[in-house]
Amino acid sequence: MTPFKLTDEFLSEIEALIDDQKNSSLESLLNEVHYADIAEIINELSEEHATYLIKLLDSDKTSDVLTELDEDVREAILNNLSAKEIAGELEELDTDDAADIVGELPKEIIHEVISEIEDREHAKDIVDLLRYDENSAGGLMAKELVKVRESWNILTCVKEMRAQAENVTRVHSIYVVDDNDKLKGRLSLKDLLTTSTKSHISDVYIPKVDSVSVNEKPEEVAKIMSKYDLEAIPVVDEMNRLVGRITIDDIVDVIREEAEKDYQMAAGISQDVEADDSIWNLTRARLPWLFLGLVGGLGAAAIMGSFENMISSHAILFFFTPLIAAMAGNVGVQSSAIIVQGLANDDLKGGVGSRLIKEMLLAMLNGVVLATVLLIFTWVYKGDFLTSLAISISLVVVIIVAGLIGTFIPLFLHKRGIDPAIATGPFITTSNDIFGILIYFSIAKILLGI
Amino acid sequence: MTPFKLTDEFLSEIEALIDDQKNSSLESLLNEVHYADIAEIINELSEEHATYLIKLLDSDKTSDVLTELDEDVREAILNNLSAKEIAGELEELDTDDAADIVGELPKEIIHEVISEIEDREHAKDIVDLLRYDENSAGGLMAKELVKVRESWNILTCVKEMRAQAENVTRVHSIYVVDDNDKLKGRLSLKDLLTTSTKSHISDVYIPKVDSVSVNEKPEEVAKIMSKYDLEAIPVVDEMNRLVGRITIDDIVDVIREEAEKDYQMAAGISQDVEADDSIWNLTRARLPWLFLGLVGGLGAAAIMGSFENMISSHAILFFFTPLIAAMAGNVGVQSSAIIVQGLANDDLKGGVGSRLIKEMLLAMLNGVVLATVLLIFTWVYKGDFLTSLAISISLVVVIIVAGLIGTFIPLFLHKRGIDPAIATGPFITTSNDIFGILIYFSIAKILLGI
Repeated sequence: MTPFKLTDEFLSEIEALIDDQKNSSLESLLNEVHYADIAEIINELSEEHATYLIKLLDSDKTSDVLTELDEDVREAILNNLSAKEIAGELEELDTDDAADIVGELPKEIIHEVISEIEDREHAKDIVDLLRYDENSAGGLMAKELVKVRESWNILTCVKEMRAQAENVTRVHSIYVVDDNDKLKGRLSLKDLLTTSTKSHISDVYIPKVDSVSVNEKPEEVAKIMSKYDLEAIPVVDEMNRLVGRITIDDIVDVIREEAEKDYQMAAGISQDVEADDSIWNLTRARLPWLFLGLVGGLGAAAIMGSFENMISSHAILFFFTPLIAAMAGNVGVQSSAIIVQGLANDDLKGGVGSRLIKEMLLAMLNGVVLATVLLIFTWVYKGDFLTSLAISISLVVVIIVAGLIGTFIPLFLHKRGIDPAIATGPFITTSNDIFGILIYFSIAKILLGI
Repeated sequence: MTPFKLTDEFLSEIEALIDDQKNSSLESLLNEVHYADIAEIINELSEEHATYLIKLLDSDKTSDVLTELDEDVREAILNNLSAKEIAGELEELDTDDAADIVGELPKEIIHEVISEIEDREHAKDIVDLLRYDENSAGGLMAKELVKVRESWNILTCVKEMRAQAENVTRVHSIYVVDDNDKLKGRLSLKDLLTTSTKSHISDVYIPKVDSVSVNEKPEEVAKIMSKYDLEAIPVVDEMNRLVGRITIDDIVDVIREEAEKDYQMAAGISQDVEADDSIWNLTRARLPWLFLGLVGGLGAAAIMGSFENMISSHAILFFFTPLIAAMAGNVGVQSSAIIVQGLANDDLKGGVGSRLIKEMLLAMLNGVVLATVLLIFTWVYKGDFLTSLAISISLVVVIIVAGLIGTFIPLFLHKRGIDPAIATGPFITTSNDIFGILIYFSIAKILLGI
């Protein structure tokens, strides 16, 4: 299969069918289309068209479509649905997805929507999930899971499981709890297939089971599940009672979002934006970083102004300021990116000191290679050996300082509990520009005896 | 649970126990430690210590440890194992992991290792997998899966499944094939639990099943599985015959690696390196991009040299070159990053033209805001309105051009089938530095009538 590709023709066809109210054509056309793809279509439709389609299609499909929509589109559509209609959609969803949607509803209608949900157990589970912080394992987990008591035998277990499995889309593990709901262990479906029905659960379950606390951060859960190759992990409360389960598909989204956030931060984009967002949203995400760059540039200009007396005798020094600034910026971004990634993957060993020494050696090696090229080039080109040497020596020092700043700042932020990713990109480039140019002129001044 | 954190004390304890050959202490100490964590320990040990530990521990654990090791550590250890010992480890692994390890072995010993594998079916599956390109669905898939024929009834099916499930760590779906092994549909374990044993497979299976071709790119498989929330996907050959299965845990690795690659590219690091790699490896990954920056800086210097006649009357123009270069670079990186991310997520709609117009409007808006600040600042500071105006107008034009370059290049590369991620970072910064400074001086020259 290849993923569905939304064409303009297909979109126009859908719009025309909606305008002509050709319901059965629409239904048969979209019958074979995956809900994630229908969400893509609806994201592109007008609010009226979108609402029409959601009301037309079966709610076992539209409920899934709703979870995949862009947040603003979903909000607009839900606004046009009655509390009863929204409750009908929630009925079809797993509790985690339902709770996410309820969490986005205006406060004043939540109560009515919840009261319209027919399955009271489902409604209770959704309300339970609402109290967890979105940014925690509790906010990610679903209530759907299969659990059995250690006191049961396999036969009771299979009977109970059949009932529970009805509500669980994917059974990964069967969790074993004691009479107080405390998590004791697990049982794999495979084991169940290969064990005699007379056995007792307490004799066959695996007492070792990984779990996370409801308060764990999503990034941490992602790290644990991907490191230990888990497809689902049970979530326990402060009393070790089993309260939910997180599945790997939710974690895939967490990993993607984390990666996108770090990438955008490194590129100087401050919030989660996409190419198709409005110019206003894109400006809000980009302008602050550019403003930082502007301030840095003004700082660099002020520094150069203070060395103005050198301009008549050594104009060439001023020609190399973009080079110095660029090298300082590039080295800083490289070293900070490596540290940020090491911190994210938890694979930085050794202390800050040894890391700084390593970066210094590395920067020195790179710096000497680059400075040699620069020296030969400027000497041949300009014929002034002393000035060329001064520029080249400055470059080495600038590269070393830039590397040290790039290494130190993310480590420092991390130690202070601040996301080190903010130290990549424009932040490090700007500070390195200023330091670089200051160092460059100071060294040149000393070496050239001006 | 919190993920295992390797301490220096624990490492020293392990090393001391190995030196003293305290085997039973080592075994009981590491018994409760997860294989992924043992791999972390072994990555830090000397080759002798590491080999000792691998030989000591049970191969059902060490085989998994081997898959998690750093490539160079694994290579060193396998070098110290006999063909029979390696075969013993492969015996314990799923075919995909086993094939990855065999693929890394020196050509001359592969034949011997394969011939030492006792389970000939397993050996055949591994050899089958070796012929697939590492960078394809075939290179990712495992042979372990549960498949049943549509002609069977549920009873035969359950019996056959019990036998097959022995070799499959996680059963996600049961795949239904015809007598020629062509993929027909699927059956969920849950359905099996809730269907009477007298039913015929052909009556109960779900004929709709997503699959990917063996030749599909891993990124594409990742996109499909994460978009459609799949935990496993069957892989078919050119004749639609079921040849393997890819599970989500392998896809999580693909997603992480993709994200890291793009991030490093944007930071100007050209290959997959980590903070703990050698200075030599880090230099090889970083120096080429710095060299590119050097060339850019020399270009900028040459351009400034050609405007040298302006230096006596308008020295201030030269003070703002780092600012101009920084803004051109930052804007370019921002716009290219947004395009690269949009391309990666497949959510860019509309043509190149409309995208360039949007970026132009956005850059104009940002540019005017920034230029106004710059104008006021330089005017107050230097008192020369005309020069300040010239600098500010140049800034707007530079930002617009930088935004357009940053938008166009990744789109162009993508159209040509080249990974657009290479256009972020140093590449775009360097070219924008040069263009920016050239535009800046040209406009200033015209406006100031020099």
